[in-house]
Amino acid sequence: MLCTHLIRQKRDAGELTKDQWEFLIRGFCDGSVSPAQMAAMAMAICIRGLNSRETVDLTATMLASGTRLPRVTDRPRVDKHSTGGLGDKVSLVLAPLLAAVGCDVPMISGRGLGRTGGTLDKLEAIEGFETSLSIDQSSDVLRRVGAFIIGADESIAPADRKLYALRDVTATVESVGLITASILSKKLAASLDALTMDVKVGRGGFMPDVEQARELAGRLVEVAAGSHLPTNAILSDMNQPLGEAIGNAIEVNEAIQILRGGTCNERVARVRDLTIRLAAQSLIAVDLAGGLEEAQQMLTRALDQGDAMERFERMITAQHGRLPTSGILSLESRREWGAPVAGWVSRIDCEAIGDAIILAGGGRRRGGETLNHRVGIELMVQIGQRVEQGQPIIALHDDKNAMTPDPTTWVTIEEAPKPMAHLIVEVI
Amino acid sequence: MLCTHLIRQKRDAGELTKDQWEFLIRGFCDGSVSPAQMAAMAMAICIRGLNSRETVDLTATMLASGTRLPRVTDRPRVDKHSTGGLGDKVSLVLAPLLAAVGCDVPMISGRGLGRTGGTLDKLEAIEGFETSLSIDQSSDVLRRVGAFIIGADESIAPADRKLYALRDVTATVESVGLITASILSKKLAASLDALTMDVKVGRGGFMPDVEQARELAGRLVEVAAGSHLPTNAILSDMNQPLGEAIGNAIEVNEAIQILRGGTCNERVARVRDLTIRLAAQSLIAVDLAGGLEEAQQMLTRALDQGDAMERFERMITAQHGRLPTSGILSLESRREWGAPVAGWVSRIDCEAIGDAIILAGGGRRRGGETLNHRVGIELMVQIGQRVEQGQPIIALHDDKNAMTPDPTTWVTIEEAPKPMAHLIVEVI
Repeated sequence: MLCTHLIRQKRDAGELTKDQWEFLIRGFCDGSVSPAQMAAMAMAICIRGLNSRETVDLTATMLASGTRLPRVTDRPRVDKHSTGGLGDKVSLVLAPLLAAVGCDVPMISGRGLGRTGGTLDKLEAIEGFETSLSIDQSSDVLRRVGAFIIGADESIAPADRKLYALRDVTATVESVGLITASILSKKLAASLDALTMDVKVGRGGFMPDVEQARELAGRLVEVAAGSHLPTNAILSDMNQPLGEAIGNAIEVNEAIQILRGGTCNERVARVRDLTIRLAAQSLIAVDLAGGLEEAQQMLTRALDQGDAMERFERMITAQHGRLPTSGILSLESRREWGAPVAGWVSRIDCEAIGDAIILAGGGRRRGGETLNHRVGIELMVQIGQRVEQGQPIIALHDDKNAMTPDPTTWVTIEEAPKPMAHLIVEVI
Repeated sequence: MLCTHLIRQKRDAGELTKDQWEFLIRGFCDGSVSPAQMAAMAMAICIRGLNSRETVDLTATMLASGTRLPRVTDRPRVDKHSTGGLGDKVSLVLAPLLAAVGCDVPMISGRGLGRTGGTLDKLEAIEGFETSLSIDQSSDVLRRVGAFIIGADESIAPADRKLYALRDVTATVESVGLITASILSKKLAASLDALTMDVKVGRGGFMPDVEQARELAGRLVEVAAGSHLPTNAILSDMNQPLGEAIGNAIEVNEAIQILRGGTCNERVARVRDLTIRLAAQSLIAVDLAGGLEEAQQMLTRALDQGDAMERFERMITAQHGRLPTSGILSLESRREWGAPVAGWVSRIDCEAIGDAIILAGGGRRRGGETLNHRVGIELMVQIGQRVEQGQPIIALHDDKNAMTPDPTTWVTIEEAPKPMAHLIVEVI
């Protein structure tokens, strides 16, 4: 088998066999296929695409480049994965919540790059929290708590790690086939019984367009099925940040507010509702609930009775984190802005908000940059909401006033009302 | 400017500006654009294409990565370039022939890779012949002889050399835009007044299909015009080897036969006719002849009166080569095969013949392999010709009988006559 023949085949819109994918990925890992050859292949894939069968084979090959986590209990093993969006702190709530109702949630998560934050970065706002656990350590946490949230170490799908680094610098990230194989190779390594995908649609994620999001969700479900991992997907709205808090420590605080149960304002309720909806999909998939209503009741109860919060605290402790006694992480000092005019909120500039967080040191443009976890934004309005002139709409937590002289430009206020966006766009 | 943005732009079928090509090629040369990034770009170009303006800009950028040869006489400066084909020894005759009628021919040529031989390899069959001359040395040869044939050294379009090596291993050779920029950047470096392109069509070249060949020829002429190098192109038939001889020393011998003037058989006459036709295009382009007939008469006379042969001998001597006193290079021992049946020749297997030469050590699969120049094939028939059973059709010169047990399988003989292929397919 010759690497150039395989590249030529894909360049000319052909299909590769499972053996050919194995030859390619194994060669890429052992160095006999050069980064330049793999980059040419990745570009050919980006433009020509992969069919489902090829994606199943590529996923299996990338999975086989590393190890799989062992099952350590008899509890059903589930996880949720999101394509990433501004203010998305769902994982922080969902993992302990599902653990509280009888699941194991072995969550392997990522760091933020660009405008969308990473779950690991948020958790590291908690003093001492350790995201690098060995397989034995994480198995032990799972056995005791029912949930962990860690980073992928070298042993989990190393081919994916190497390929992702290459794609990042060669403009070959945006391929449905490659994204699918990347996500699923890591999720398969977690030895799950069921996976729920949260595919974000809108300007605050990386799929602005519902058609593309639907294509990715469909492919994920199809390829996961072909890989024997029952998976369902929800398209959720990301035309505005999810919830009120954007940042690291500030998002942990919002997650804790939800974990403590009880009432919350309608912006925070969107986070809670999405979390419950996604968690419900998992419960149904592993037969812990007979239907959506039953599942949602179980989950709401676990929040309101404090079971989820208790799991969260145990998970943080098991991963060496120390929550302050108040349960509230401290932030940079706060400044607040009022609406310049009265009207209806029609648009929220997710790009500008994401960039402002990066500018203030709360996000990163390149891998490896250290973060100021105390930086954050509170967005006190959402699309479709009525505001009066002077009503507080935004607060910034940025010690050096680094973000912007006028954050009110992020919120567009119009004279005519604009309908609220539905949180759940579609269930695949 | 960010390299990934440029790659993304081409990936999404966009156009790049001249500044962007310069940024990319300069970065590729200085290492700030990695081979993987350039490979992804080359693949995007292969699939999405380059328009003429982009190709002009890319060509200019690759030219500017090196130096240009100085003009050293007042004679018109011309050259011919072929896309390469089996048995193509036209350059060996054409360079001294055009010098004999008053042109300077500063020919920068290549080595063979794969099935089509390289002019430099053929010339190296001549003892002592030196293909690596400094710019000063080659200028001196041109001043004294009117022609040289050398390899491109590091100073000629180094970006092209680096990019070609990358394309070779990443299945990104076959792109009309990249082929055009590669050819023209080197030809522009020779400071020519006019260029004639010989684009081969058929199974013995790398463009089997006339549509593709026409596209390449048209693009070459258009981009050369945009680069201020008047260029014309001829599509010539390559469904069978050009001439009787295939190999290195054996092709030099056939070239010398033509250079000596006078009559020759119809297979060798095809080489002579094509050489005269291509050389005539150059004479007309630089106004040394008023029309095709006048040009062809001048050139035929230069062959028949010995002027071309005299130039050839002077060029060989100036480049330190020593021709044997017989003027015939020695070959491996010869064996001959007769036609297994009577009939008409309908097809000649160029791939098998090219592979046989490589197998016997006369060609290379990878750069850097040394050659046995004494290996060769004589093809005593051409398509459309009548043969009788037992009539000699093929002779092999291969000391170790390495080529094949039965070379007659390379020639298909049918009962019904097949028309002769036209040598000149089209003039662009």
